[in-house]
Amino acid sequence: MPVMDINADLAEGFGVWELGDDLALLDVITSANVACGFHAGDPLIMRRVCAAAVERGVAIGAQVSYRDLAGFGRREMDVAPSELAAEVLYQLAALDGIARAEGGRVAYVKPHGALYNRLARDPVQARAVSEAVRAFDPSLPVLTLPGSALYEVADDLTVIDECFADRAYTPAGGLVSRREPGAVVHDPETVVKRAVRMATEGSVTAVDGSDVRLSARSMCVHGDTPGAVELARAVRDGLEAAGVRLGPFA
Amino acid sequence: MPVMDINADLAEGFGVWELGDDLALLDVITSANVACGFHAGDPLIMRRVCAAAVERGVAIGAQVSYRDLAGFGRREMDVAPSELAAEVLYQLAALDGIARAEGGRVAYVKPHGALYNRLARDPVQARAVSEAVRAFDPSLPVLTLPGSALYEVADDLTVIDECFADRAYTPAGGLVSRREPGAVVHDPETVVKRAVRMATEGSVTAVDGSDVRLSARSMCVHGDTPGAVELARAVRDGLEAAGVRLGPFA
Amino acid sequence: MPVMDINADLAEGFGVWELGDDLALLDVITSANVACGFHAGDPLIMRRVCAAAVERGVAIGAQVSYRDLAGFGRREMDVAPSELAAEVLYQLAALDGIARAEGGRVAYVKPHGALYNRLARDPVQARAVSEAVRAFDPSLPVLTLPGSALYEVADDLTVIDECFADRAYTPAGGLVSRREPGAVVHDPETVVKRAVRMATEGSVTAVDGSDVRLSARSMCVHGDTPGAVELARAVRDGLEAAGVRLGPFA
Amino acid sequence: MPVMDINADLAEGFGVWELGDDLALLDVITSANVACGFHAGDPLIMRRVCAAAVERGVAIGAQVSYRDLAGFGRREMDVAPSELAAEVLYQLAALDGIARAEGGRVAYVKPHGALYNRLARDPVQARAVSEAVRAFDPSLPVLTLPGSALYEVADDLTVIDECFADRAYTPAGGLVSRREPGAVVHDPETVVKRAVRMATEGSVTAVDGSDVRLSARSMCVHGDTPGAVELARAVRDGLEAAGVRLGPFA
Repeated sequence: MPVMDINADLAEGFGVWELGDDLALLDVITSANVACGFHAGDPLIMRRVCAAAVERGVAIGAQVSYRDLAGFGRREMDVAPSELAAEVLYQLAALDGIARAEGGRVAYVKPHGALYNRLARDPVQARAVSEAVRAFDPSLPVLTLPGSALYEVADDLTVIDECFADRAYTPAGGLVSRREPGAVVHDPETVVKRAVRMATEGSVTAVDGSDVRLSARSMCVHGDTPGAVELARAVRDGLEAAGVRLGPFA
Repeated sequence: MPVMDINADLAEGFGVWELGDDLALLDVITSANVACGFHAGDPLIMRRVCAAAVERGVAIGAQVSYRDLAGFGRREMDVAPSELAAEVLYQLAALDGIARAEGGRVAYVKPHGALYNRLARDPVQARAVSEAVRAFDPSLPVLTLPGSALYEVADDLTVIDECFADRAYTPAGGLVSRREPGAVVHDPETVVKRAVRMATEGSVTAVDGSDVRLSARSMCVHGDTPGAVELARAVRDGLEAAGVRLGPFA
Repeated sequence: MPVMDINADLAEGFGVWELGDDLALLDVITSANVACGFHAGDPLIMRRVCAAAVERGVAIGAQVSYRDLAGFGRREMDVAPSELAAEVLYQLAALDGIARAEGGRVAYVKPHGALYNRLARDPVQARAVSEAVRAFDPSLPVLTLPGSALYEVADDLTVIDECFADRAYTPAGGLVSRREPGAVVHDPETVVKRAVRMATEGSVTAVDGSDVRLSARSMCVHGDTPGAVELARAVRDGLEAAGVRLGPFA
Repeated sequence: MPVMDINADLAEGFGVWELGDDLALLDVITSANVACGFHAGDPLIMRRVCAAAVERGVAIGAQVSYRDLAGFGRREMDVAPSELAAEVLYQLAALDGIARAEGGRVAYVKPHGALYNRLARDPVQARAVSEAVRAFDPSLPVLTLPGSALYEVADDLTVIDECFADRAYTPAGGLVSRREPGAVVHDPETVVKRAVRMATEGSVTAVDGSDVRLSARSMCVHGDTPGAVELARAVRDGLEAAGVRLGPFA
């Protein structure tokens, strides 16, 4: 029986500002990437999301980020490695303490936004992040893209691919850049079909029509765009209908 | 043999900005109140101070604060209890994770600045802070003023008095407000004498000449004013010369 | 012909986070209280709202605040007068420069949230804010509550009452505290009737049934609650139907 | 009679944190690059430095920066052009309002840190900054490096070279990267000699021994390193002894 995890970003409001429908998403996903206060997520939002995740048996991951509330962590920053490592460690620990107060714990790490993209190709920052994970808890898996620089610099850590049912893939197994036409698959039915094939066959059709093998154990869905929760729900329903067993990967 | 702890505020720089001489103070004190990022203390400074404290056997305390970098946590804020509890929990956990990465751990809590003063008289915020300590680790002692509202609202926690050799006391055992003349004792020799008497006799002469009993197990010294480190060193030397055994209270 | 201004808070998003429907409100109001970056409002949001306000002939006011993004400026802070004056001056100037780049200018000042409430009763902070207005442009009117401390400390400035059609009034002309039952009038029809009477007769029925005289030249409507824009639109329509001429007060 | 301006970075403290000796520097320089709150400089520090600059006839420039207090504006950030333009406009306007309240005004712009370096080579961000200057006051000169991308994208603005007596130059007239050995000239006597030659002959000896022509009208000195104020003072004395007339360039 094929297994798959569904992860999404949560706790991305800040103070009075809300973003996405955390509670609705928690009923769909099996792993919650919880913001840790650096790009979004004040301590109270973090705490409420952790409590709700624990209640539902959803795994809690640390969505660590650059320190950039104004830019939502979406701008690459040339942070020095020692600073970046300390900042990631700080975020991991803060969320873990909050999760534990609610009966859970941080079960994995998923870098956010520009940091996520940077780690895919920059061994210096990848090394800094992996140093933080190692210092905090070397058993924590890190979610990343296929081919990420994290694989090279952290072979003692558990680095895990994730996949995206609504993104186009290159023949080499990478994501087509969002700047290219067709990078995002919008048709819900197609998205669901791709999700099922990723989970049951471990493959996806690339932009050139060729088949690409994927080894992803977790599938990322989005929560902050119109219709996102419905699409996530459709993906979940499709996976279950296809006999995929859903559950946290970590 | 009388025992005493000496605590001081550390890691109170932020980014490029420095404050006080952390390394010099670490050679004098036995407990370091480490800033947690909300009034001062970026993750890298926190990490370096924790590493240096562990190296010297100095206990690490969490100097939790209002979220107020611009005001250095010195302005009272009407933070809602649920937010304050979550913010304190966040800071406790973040520092503890950093301390553990360096081989230590958070051994106690000392609220900072305006929050420290507010807790002395506001049971609502005191309850919020004690809720955070309870959620994080109910065995953590909390340093506070004699007569603090923390005593009333947290009788399941270990609330501990601290004393100040350089502050004038009222006959009732409280501190004379800094707005009053004579609130701060400036003469180093007098400060040392008061410190020794606090540690060896458990008492201090109040502003009216009467004797006040103190039960403080920890003495606070300052590090960020001119001559502060020298005064702290003189206090330590005076205590040792008087046969006081110095060591962390927590 | 009676005249009235309708003001509302705008530009209260920050970065990726949105709050309220600025463009919809701009078609209803005649004065926009634009956030200045301290409780909400990043420079790009401020610029876009200023451009849209200028396009529609809506006056731009500076919604100055405590520095408190995490608390949306809703927590009272004991900011020292010299700091508060400098912070208000900074915000006024920043918004004015942005407004001028879009063909407008800051035409008035409306303190936000906890600062607004504090100024109503604290002459020290009221003096600090009025010092900033005086230093920036002493001809700028300041919107406030009836009976505000601003009246006492700034008799050289133009301090102007505003009124609230959806709030209950005490017989003395003050607002009933939000903590009291009945503080907010929810029925849209009643709100509109009260608005019309405020504008045409300069009076309102207080909670004890007595009539209270109001001299308010501007009426505050809200934009960030469900149904708020519809209610604001109903108030505007009601006022126009009653022959009230709408336009900026400043 | 040759003329030269001496500029330095000021108001770079924040809240309780101080950096450099602003008042000592103000007695040496003729143009003050005043931090605007995004990398350093709270409104009160800005106001005090503006007042002191006006008192001494020192010109006030806006030291605009990325929004990055934790990194002191020293980390490059991929800020979108529309956001960057709005942020620079906000800073320019805020400082100008503060300067005007103290009897001065913003007389020029000098981007700070990582933004300064980025503008030297990135036409996209250079265009964004020049758009802000144009929108605020197209007559404001902008200080930059020789060969900066600002020259290309802002030929309607007054872009002005600055020079550095303590930095090594390439034969092409650029600065030797700080990562190279010998990038910084440490010997005070040599620095003063280079300063005098820059001001009187408009040239400097490059690292290969060749002569480079410079057209800089302003010379940058530093204030935040040990001995910096003394070196700045020596440069000023040397220039005056060589008959150079000192005064603001703007």
